Order: sequence, then structure tokens, then C-alpha cells
Amino acid sequence: MTPAEHETLEFIDAVASGVRESAERGEPPRIEFPVRSLANVSYDPAKGWLEIGDARKSRALTVRTVKSFAQTLRLMAVSRGMVEDDDFATKREAYYVSKNWGECRFDEQPESDAIMDDVEALASLHGLSREQLRFYPEAHGGSVVGPLVVVDRDTETGAAIEIDCRSLGSGAYTIPRSVEHLEFRADADFILAIETGGMFQRLNHHRFWRKARAVLVETAGVPTRATRRFVRRLSDDTKLPVYCFTDCDPYGFANIYRTLKVGSGNAAHINRFFCVPKARFLGVTPRDIVDYRLEDATHPLTDTDVKRARDALEHDPFFAAEPDWVAAIERLLAMGVRAEQQALAKWGLNFVIDTYLPRKLRDEGSFLP
Amino acid sequence: MTPAEHETLEFIDAVASGVRESAERGEPPRIEFPVRSLANVSYDPAKGWLEIGDARKSRALTVRTVKSFAQTLRLMAVSRGMVEDDDFATKREAYYVSKNWGECRFDEQPESDAIMDDVEALASLHGLSREQLRFYPEAHGGSVVGPLVVVDRDTETGAAIEIDCRSLGSGAYTIPRSVEHLEFRADADFILAIETGGMFQRLNHHRFWRKARAVLVETAGVPTRATRRFVRRLSDDTKLPVYCFTDCDPYGFANIYRTLKVGSGNAAHINRFFCVPKARFLGVTPRDIVDYRLEDATHPLTDTDVKRARDALEHDPFFAAEPDWVAAIERLLAMGVRAEQQALAKWGLNFVIDTYLPRKLRDEGSFLP
Repeated sequence: MTPAEHETLEFIDAVASGVRESAERGEPPRIEFPVRSLANVSYDPAKGWLEIGDARKSRALTVRTVKSFAQTLRLMAVSRGMVEDDDFATKREAYYVSKNWGECRFDEQPESDAIMDDVEALASLHGLSREQLRFYPEAHGGSVVGPLVVVDRDTETGAAIEIDCRSLGSGAYTIPRSVEHLEFRADADFILAIETGGMFQRLNHHRFWRKARAVLVETAGVPTRATRRFVRRLSDDTKLPVYCFTDCDPYGFANIYRTLKVGSGNAAHINRFFCVPKARFLGVTPRDIVDYRLEDATHPLTDTDVKRARDALEHDPFFAAEPDWVAAIERLLAMGVRAEQQALAKWGLNFVIDTYLPRKLRDEGSFLP
Repeated sequence: MTPAEHETLEFIDAVASGVRESAERGEPPRIEFPVRSLANVSYDPAKGWLEIGDARKSRALTVRTVKSFAQTLRLMAVSRGMVEDDDFATKREAYYVSKNWGECRFDEQPESDAIMDDVEALASLHGLSREQLRFYPEAHGGSVVGPLVVVDRDTETGAAIEIDCRSLGSGAYTIPRSVEHLEFRADADFILAIETGGMFQRLNHHRFWRKARAVLVETAGVPTRATRRFVRRLSDDTKLPVYCFTDCDPYGFANIYRTLKVGSGNAAHINRFFCVPKARFLGVTPRDIVDYRLEDATHPLTDTDVKRARDALEHDPFFAAEPDWVAAIERLLAMGVRAEQQALAKWGLNFVIDTYLPRKLRDEGSFLP
């Protein structure tokens, strides 16, 4: 068992012991959880992620809470068993496992999800992620190619396995759901997180990663937890910078990039594990639309785009702290259009490889923060 | 250049020559395309896929059609250039490339998609797929693990690359967007196509593929074109049987399995390349809900489920041709519930590995056709 696994068991045992000791003293057992609402979230640029605050809610054992109290303990017991057996469960599976719990079974998955989120938030205060509790996300991560060797192990035999992300032909490496155990050997200058599969495929087909010495990661829209944790661990371990390459639209800025860099507001208790504070935004920027004369390859901003942009300006603590982003988003709103990564194909399918990316990479100072 | 690439160029040249010869004779040029509507689709169980019929529509060069006629020829010219340069474009990129065509640029992507579909339907009559025209799908394929070596080549150097799908640790191989050039060496007894990422992850983590000698393919819902073509080519080349493992619901039967096996009605011109006629349905079946006592881990059928099931019974030529499927769908409607793959976790997280799959695989006769 690894030190991290011991920590997980100690955390579970400590909560369970507290409950038992209260009961033995004749007091109603009680567990305190962090409040998981936006009101209890703050952003400190020095830390670099949206963080959960100090507000706590208390779940005491009463007639009214007996079912959810029991469910909380049983879910933690499932977690304990999975650490011991080197197993795991998706949220969906955890819900189904409860069908054998008799009276305290979950009726619907939102019930088990809410309790799992509470347990996860509590564990996060002890530096433990949901993956360490052995509850894995349903979605795996994006695809990876480039000068990177991922060191994994066979889950059955324990034998070391090396995956060379240069040797996957036209295919790619799929990031697994949990990446805690991976090790990395990179021979690269930076990590490039790419929004669309089409662009990833083009850069891979033409071996952009070889010329540019870059690890390419396809986020396929908003990066999943597994993708975010993979980029975070990879960049921490290798000290490589992370550049983000999305469409020029509020979704690319405020959903994809913001989530990758500082996390999301409604899961603030996990951002410290998942965000990539050193990420920077390479493009496509509103200025690129002008500089690369893409005006006739743009689309008008939709109402949703405009709403998303205004929300970012008015309510998002990350953008509020970055004047360059405020200026960029205001410029986009004034232009009234958005441009996709693939709009660069107006100048030829490989303009992005031959001209756009090399020119961008020579001028890192132009990246948005 | 490969023989298949020569065929593509010959097809494009033949269409273009026909247009020029008409013009030189002083006749209006004309191109005949297959009609791509459901009325022109049929199912022949002996062939095993939904097939496009003989109806044709003619596009002649007139004042009214001059723009779409020119767009058709320019799109085919792009295709020709990509074959020569060993390049490719997504549908989205092809749309943007047109922004440099002056007056005959596409205004919206649905215009370019419709013309691309026509060209693709025409090419299909000559045995050519969209991928051979070098228009690739935006979405890559699902994930693959198991006793399979995929032989690919470096797109830049041409060097052979072997990807051993047993040696990816907790990760997996992502199926590339085009699989035409891949070769396979399998040491397996069958291919298992799995609906959910959660189940794929479980079977991979516990190395089910090693014990069962199976290549595991995650379809992640309805399989993409790339996934379907990969399974088709893999099963053709290796002669391995294909079993499909989905949720027990109309979406699993009529969308995921039906599309994998016989293709889809609105893209009948490509089914001959993409469907997997020899696929069979392992489960989860309505009978499994009773046999494995999953009743309290089911969910009521939604209105959408019921509509989908009735559509399958009343309008789908594949199900109409298979009495066992008609009985299964009618039974599901009578039960009024659906069950997910992960519902088997009611009996323990690994019941599916220890009991369900081994028992199913011993009784292939129980598979639905």
C-alpha cells in the first residue's frame, strides 16, 4: 500500500472513530462538511485557483437525518474497501452498489452524488482527491501525442509499462480516468492544450509535435477532470509551460481555458488538485481576427455567447483580476463575432502549422494571462 | 501512391472529364448523384446493411445551379489535391477553405456538408468512402485495449509503427479518424464493443481482456464513423466475431447496436463501408433483468424510450427482419423499465467480470441477432 493510500484510510478511520466515540459518550454523532456553494468560493491570484472558503455545515445524527447519515458512512466504507482491494467505482456504480443496502439504499443517483460531493469536499481539506477515495469520473481524458513517455504499470501484474507518445502512428494515447500513479519523461519545450479534435488531428498528422518539441493534448471542448489532472501533474513534474489553443469565443475563454487554468466555481473544493495555474492563452485572440484577416471566416456572436462574455466580465473573479482579459473580452463584444481555430484554413489547410503557430510561439509576450 | 489513391483520382478525373466533354460538345454539363433519402434505402438480410437504392438526381449546369455546380467541382478539386499531398480536411475545414473561393464560397457549413454528402454518395457507387476522398470525420474513434497489435506508420517518415494494445497500462489506444491504412495482428477470440466508459474502464483495470482473450472497444454511446470502420476492418481482417455489450434500453438496441451492425438510414450510401454485419448482441437483454434479479436497479422507460422502441418495431427494416428482436423489444415495453450495464454492480462491483460475462460467453446461442 502506498503512503497516499494509507492517508486515505487514516482519513476514513478518523471520521468513523469520531462518530463512534460520540455515540459511546452518549452524544449525537456529528460530521462537519465544507459548504459547497458559490458564496463560499474565493480567488487569490497568488494561489491561482478558485478556492473553497471556511464555511462549514454540520450533519448530526437525528431521526430526520438517519438515512443520509448512514449513507455517508456506508459510502466511506465502500471507499475503504476499494482502497484495500485496489478497486474503484464510478459515481453511477456507487449508486448501484447501494441497491444492496436495504433501507438505506439511494433511490436516485443525485442523492448519492450529493453525499459523495460532501465526502469529497471533506477529504479535500485533508489533501485527498475523489480519485484517492477511489471514486473515478465516468469520462476518461483527452488524447495525447508527442515527445513524452508515460510510465504506468500493469494493473494485474504490477509490471512497469512505458507508453511512448511518439509511437502511436495516426492514433493517440487516451488519458486514463485516474492519473495519480503515472510518471513522466518528456523531451519537450512546452505542452499545448488544443480545443478541437480536428486541429489536434492536423497537428498530429503533420508531426507538428516533432518540429515544435511539444506535447499535444486534445481537450475536446471543456477538459474532463482526468485531462485537467493529467496536464497539471505533467506540468508539475516536468516544469514545462502550458499553452492553451482554443476558438476565439466566450466558450473557449470562459469555459475551456478558465476551467483548465483556475478550475470551476461549482467544484471549488477540488480545484487545488485539478487546475493548471501556470497555463497561458496562446490564441485564437480577438486581435488575431484582425491580424490574420479572418473577418469573412467569422460567425456572429449568439445571445448565449454574449451572455457568457458578460458573465465573465461581471461575475468571474479570475477575469476580474486580469485587465488584459477584460480588454480582450470587451473587444470581442465590440466586434460582435467569434472565430474558430479552423477558420485559419481560409489561408490554406496548413497555414496554422506553417505560419500561425510559429509566429505566435516566437512572441510569448502576446499570450493572454 | 497506393492503388486505392489511384482509384480516387480516377474517379475525380472521370467526373471532371465528363463535365468538360459535355461543355466542349456545347451541351450543358450534368452530374448524376444517388438520392440520399430514406425512401431510397432498403435492407437485405443477406447483405447485412441498410443500402442505398437506384434512384438518382441530376445536377445540370444552369443559371440557377451555377454556384452549387462550381462548388461541387471545387470540392472535388480540393479532394484531388489532398490525395496528391497526403493531406485531409474535416468538414469544418473544407467549409473554411472555400472562404478563399470568391463568389462561390459557402455561406454556411450546411451548404458544404450537403454537397460533400452528394459527392460522397456518388463516390460510394465506385466503392470509395469519404475517407478516401480525404474528408475525415471531426470525431475520432473510441478507445481500444487487449491482445491486439495495430500496425500503423509515421505520417512523416513512413516508418512502420506497432502499437501493442496490451501495453497501455491504465490508458488505452485512441482510434484515429481514418483507419484505412492500419493493419492488425490479434491474439484474441472475439471483439467486445462496450457502450460505457465506466464498464470499459472496469474490464480494462481487471485485465478482463487477458483472461477472456478479447479485444475491448469502448463505443462511448453510438459509435463514431471511425469506431465503426475500425471494428469492421478489424473483424474482416482477423475473422474474429464481434459481440456488443450495451445498456438494456431502446437507445442501446436501436441506436448503438443497430448502427454498429447495419448502419443508419440517413447515411445509407456509406453503410457498406461502416457497418459490422456479423456483430451480435450479448446483452444486457430484457431477459437478463429477470434472470439476474435487477428489477430494483432499473429505471422506468421514459416517453422517449417508448417512442424509440415503437419506431424500431414499426419502421426499422432491420428489427422487422428479426423475430427475436421483436420479441425482446416487446418484452421490454411490457416490463416498462430499462437497466444499465452498471446495474450489475448491485451484486458487487466485479459481478460483471466474475459471473455475468463468463456465463453469457458460455451460451452464445442466447445472443440476440
